[in-house]
Amino acid sequence: MPIHVIAADFLVTMNADNAVIENGAVAIDGDRIADVGRLDDVKSRHPASTIRRLPNRLIMPGLVNAHLHSGVLRGTAEGLPVWDWLRMFIDPMHRVLQPRDAEAAAWLCYAESVLSGTTTVVDMWRHMEGAGRAARQIGNRTVMVPYVGEHPDYDYFDHLDDTERLLETWHGKADGRVEVWVGLEHAFYSTEAGHERAISLAKKFKTGFHTHSNEAEVELAEMQRRYGCRSIQALEKLGLLDADRTLLAHCVWLDDSEIELMAKRGVAVAHNPASNMKLASGYAPVDRLRAAGVAVGIGTDGEKENNNLDMFEEMKFASLLTKFARLDAAALDSWDVMRMATIEGARAIGKDHEIGSLEVGKKADLIAVRTDTPRMTPLFGGTGGNLHHNLVHAVRGGDVDITMIDGRIVVESGELKTASMADLIAEVHAVVPGLFDRRSKWLAQNDKGAISPIGQVG
Amino acid sequence: MPIHVIAADFLVTMNADNAVIENGAVAIDGDRIADVGRLDDVKSRHPASTIRRLPNRLIMPGLVNAHLHSGVLRGTAEGLPVWDWLRMFIDPMHRVLQPRDAEAAAWLCYAESVLSGTTTVVDMWRHMEGAGRAARQIGNRTVMVPYVGEHPDYDYFDHLDDTERLLETWHGKADGRVEVWVGLEHAFYSTEAGHERAISLAKKFKTGFHTHSNEAEVELAEMQRRYGCRSIQALEKLGLLDADRTLLAHCVWLDDSEIELMAKRGVAVAHNPASNMKLASGYAPVDRLRAAGVAVGIGTDGEKENNNLDMFEEMKFASLLTKFARLDAAALDSWDVMRMATIEGARAIGKDHEIGSLEVGKKADLIAVRTDTPRMTPLFGGTGGNLHHNLVHAVRGGDVDITMIDGRIVVESGELKTASMADLIAEVHAVVPGLFDRRSKWLAQNDKGAISPIGQVG
Repeated sequence: MPIHVIAADFLVTMNADNAVIENGAVAIDGDRIADVGRLDDVKSRHPASTIRRLPNRLIMPGLVNAHLHSGVLRGTAEGLPVWDWLRMFIDPMHRVLQPRDAEAAAWLCYAESVLSGTTTVVDMWRHMEGAGRAARQIGNRTVMVPYVGEHPDYDYFDHLDDTERLLETWHGKADGRVEVWVGLEHAFYSTEAGHERAISLAKKFKTGFHTHSNEAEVELAEMQRRYGCRSIQALEKLGLLDADRTLLAHCVWLDDSEIELMAKRGVAVAHNPASNMKLASGYAPVDRLRAAGVAVGIGTDGEKENNNLDMFEEMKFASLLTKFARLDAAALDSWDVMRMATIEGARAIGKDHEIGSLEVGKKADLIAVRTDTPRMTPLFGGTGGNLHHNLVHAVRGGDVDITMIDGRIVVESGELKTASMADLIAEVHAVVPGLFDRRSKWLAQNDKGAISPIGQVG
Repeated sequence: MPIHVIAADFLVTMNADNAVIENGAVAIDGDRIADVGRLDDVKSRHPASTIRRLPNRLIMPGLVNAHLHSGVLRGTAEGLPVWDWLRMFIDPMHRVLQPRDAEAAAWLCYAESVLSGTTTVVDMWRHMEGAGRAARQIGNRTVMVPYVGEHPDYDYFDHLDDTERLLETWHGKADGRVEVWVGLEHAFYSTEAGHERAISLAKKFKTGFHTHSNEAEVELAEMQRRYGCRSIQALEKLGLLDADRTLLAHCVWLDDSEIELMAKRGVAVAHNPASNMKLASGYAPVDRLRAAGVAVGIGTDGEKENNNLDMFEEMKFASLLTKFARLDAAALDSWDVMRMATIEGARAIGKDHEIGSLEVGKKADLIAVRTDTPRMTPLFGGTGGNLHHNLVHAVRGGDVDITMIDGRIVVESGELKTASMADLIAEVHAVVPGLFDRRSKWLAQNDKGAISPIGQVG
């Protein structure tokens, strides 16, 4: 296969030194990175290659969104704290969600992701065969984690039977871009038998385990009541930290003993700053987690919690929230935030040998970002430059010009090349009236209080 | 003059009822709004008008950025709390800033503003004849407030002589789009004679007064030491609340007596959530200020504090920061945030009779926002719809398709029509090396500690 070289004014490698290469290039051989360096050097090492030089662009690794729920409730579930919000808006939606709804959501969310520079998502969602089809066609990398309830009180989610079927049919598919993990919506949405089966499935398929934990203060009290200890200790007691890899979303309310235990057990965290602010959950101590050696990725959470899936914006929230919460403007340097959104996110899902930086042998997952904008003016490259500060605080997903995954261009000139955006939006509008209608009927029959047909309170 | 009608799927009027008109239209007569309503009705009332129907768009008032510093330090002044940051990065820049630098900054910042849907800015900046020329050509509305120091310790800012000259030459120019206010960088950057002259100038020209106040906790202690009271009481004692209109930026550290005094004296606030988080200043109690009747607008602060000037993003920060700071997901409803960025911002600068909502007789300052994006999917109009939640939490400046100011289109298809963006960026890159070089020399001669040529610490 011929080697293709893509080159730009700056290459932000996100390697161990956070090296920025001026007039840099990446040589791509099929789905892998064959060379990284200055354009002149790469050219001389690969004289037969085709070269594409992008003016006014920088090239960096694609972003890793460590926690997402695909969904179609954007802007229709507002103004409630997390547990009330689940009861009023989200759980009733899960009761009536149909496979076609779920698939429409996944297509839209994956399209939004690649358009804003995200190449890998960890997606906890429902009826995920549809998400698999979406990733296959859109071209992104996805870790699919069915939202599972295995307790009679939470029987309206997916079940571990669905997870097992998905593991058998989709794990490793789409040239390896689709991976399936085992998940539970929450530890106490499952019986003990469910906990055991979840972890034994993860072990059997040598895959990871993902759940929500320590998100809201009320949840800690419930875990204490049920299991007599803090949440992370409870997860350990229940065997839920025994998979090869464990990724916990949120981790806002943690004490020192929990952070220590997470570090010891190699548990990773998906930090969701916008969601934690919007749902008034609180501040996740990412500085202390990282100091303890815990891998912390950044996630947008879902369209209903955020309400967008722009990992550039999420980097800004991550940066500013730690500075604010600690009242320390020096807290969480921009390079650290960049690492969380790339290589550290990859480490959090056990894929840092494959993605998260521009290094030889890794998958060719990269993005080209416009630098001919006010948001990147003035521009200073090299060590001590300002690229990283503005990638975190100024650049937005709309500045992404090219998204390449597995060596294949899925976004070019800021437009999705692998599906019709208009069709994806039309399909969402085709399914949502039915979804809201079924939810309203369920709520009316079950007397769960008045919410409007699209879910606004009051 | 012929009447032009511009119409879209939704008209977000921001009138007193936050009315959203489906299939709505605005009729424009010169620089004024002549009619607002359903397209059918507007057409029948203006049968001779030309009609432009925008598919997949909503129309809303242009945004009011209530506090901005034009500048060219984006991403080069990071990681320090506000007073150290002023001493290390910003004040040395002011010492060496030349008119050409300042003008290049204003052109870039005004271009960035209109591209992201801001039609009016309050700009505290230097050598502002250049800013006047920028506004005249770019087409935005600007309240120009020279950054003034009138104390011998702060003689490296503009002076009230500059303000007076600007008032005489630029106040009310560019078809009234350029207004000049009197400002001080900070109350204690001036002598008592300066305070008196500032307010007498504001009174003479019947214009407003703008300064920074109550931004950082250390500042309160300094005000206490100098004037023996809280900051707002000190401003009153110094006569600095005596202009027709007073706008204070930040107002983070306020006690109840100060809020009461501000309400009584009709003092308005520019809330800068991203800046307050990034510089670790703290949370401005906008909920309590608004409850007390104080007009609170939203500002981005400067490119160096933020690091972008996207008022859509700033609305999200405003919404999420109050929810987080109060640990109350219901705090600061999205309509309230929308009002702060439009009509309440206009009220904060005494222009709510002219701008800030789509109502008959006001200036034709409006923007068209794309709705054919994932960020606006799904879309429900009308009362109880989700438009406002997604305008605050999902839409970004890059979704702005058209910006019209005074009835003139300055942005079309997301592109600046009134100047060349490439030329504006090139001019910034032409001036910044000299600016940084002069600052480095000044710092070296004055032994202010080591910062790199572009201002990174360490």
